[in-house]
Amino acid sequence: MQARSQETRKRILRSAVRLFSERGYEATGVAQICRDSEASKGAFYHHFPSKQALFIDLLKDWLRGLDAELGRALKSSASVPDGLVAMAGRMKSVFSAADGSIQLFLEFWQQARRDTGVWKEFIAPYRRYQEYFAGIIKRGVDEGSLRPLDPRVAGQTFVALAVGMLVQGVLDPDGAAWDKVTRDAVRMVITGMSSGREATRPRRR
Amino acid sequence: MQARSQETRKRILRSAVRLFSERGYEATGVAQICRDSEASKGAFYHHFPSKQALFIDLLKDWLRGLDAELGRALKSSASVPDGLVAMAGRMKSVFSAADGSIQLFLEFWQQARRDTGVWKEFIAPYRRYQEYFAGIIKRGVDEGSLRPLDPRVAGQTFVALAVGMLVQGVLDPDGAAWDKVTRDAVRMVITGMSSGREATRPRRR
Repeated sequence: MQARSQETRKRILRSAVRLFSERGYEATGVAQICRDSEASKGAFYHHFPSKQALFIDLLKDWLRGLDAELGRALKSSASVPDGLVAMAGRMKSVFSAADGSIQLFLEFWQQARRDTGVWKEFIAPYRRYQEYFAGIIKRGVDEGSLRPLDPRVAGQTFVALAVGMLVQGVLDPDGAAWDKVTRDAVRMVITGMSSGREATRPRRR
Repeated sequence: MQARSQETRKRILRSAVRLFSERGYEATGVAQICRDSEASKGAFYHHFPSKQALFIDLLKDWLRGLDAELGRALKSSASVPDGLVAMAGRMKSVFSAADGSIQLFLEFWQQARRDTGVWKEFIAPYRRYQEYFAGIIKRGVDEGSLRPLDPRVAGQTFVALAVGMLVQGVLDPDGAAWDKVTRDAVRMVITGMSSGREATRPRRR
């Protein structure tokens, strides 16, 4: 019973991703999502208080996945510069997400401008990522693998770079191999931020 | 008569910027733009074959202004690294555009996904800017002020950085002084790309 309910929830989310990315969030109604996912309205509202709540759940699910990917990449790296390059390497899974979730980006942005509830949920992880990357940079400076940098500016740089690449990937998917471009760009920026001491590997963990 | 016609055209464009950025492109009709700008439909269609044509004109006007700003910044600089930092300094005028044109960004992006005509006009300058910056980087490598870099990757890096900063500026205007952050970020990236020879100023023009 519990398993079936979770199965229904997933089916609703899958339909919503597809419909939002194809037609837009505003143009998609709860009734349509229910029809497409073969769920009753009762089942829908059992899982999601509103269309907005479902939308925010999609954003949170997506971010949870990204957080896990980034964390794994950093953990398995010997130094901060290596870790940042490894993180950029994980962008492949973001760009190649065939389930349409990358198309949802612009929907999130669009909606964030119009809907305060969505905006708050959207801007919070943005700011969180800036702090997250600032913390990583600070660690790199402390461990001596990065030259002295303003961690805040560097954090904002990485977030802007990632966002810019994602926007280009969404809008012009055939314009470049965006996952590779992102990796190359991050590697180029990191090389410039490195102290040079990690160009050969760090001697100690 | 000619002057009055141009005045009408400008008034229509101003109304369109305001309405598109407040309500969105899709939700704004030609009739509304005419009412707001006190122009007749005849006058509207004299200047613009369609709402889409007007929208594309707005994009082109905006880009023309940006091109001119960037060109001036580069021309008045002694070296490529200096020029790129000066270009980033001009972002202030982009971020502080009080006429709502920065809000139009997401409208352009949104529309580009839905409308092939808009998409083509939108993606062309994107690709053009990548090549433009790649050309500048190549010149910097040739003049010896930049270390050997892949100009294509560096060009894409700068475009992504600018786009990412603009997106953050649109969505979270109070989250940071985005013009300053952009300048600091570009300076940080450029410093990392420099050969070191221009850290002290280039000896000759």
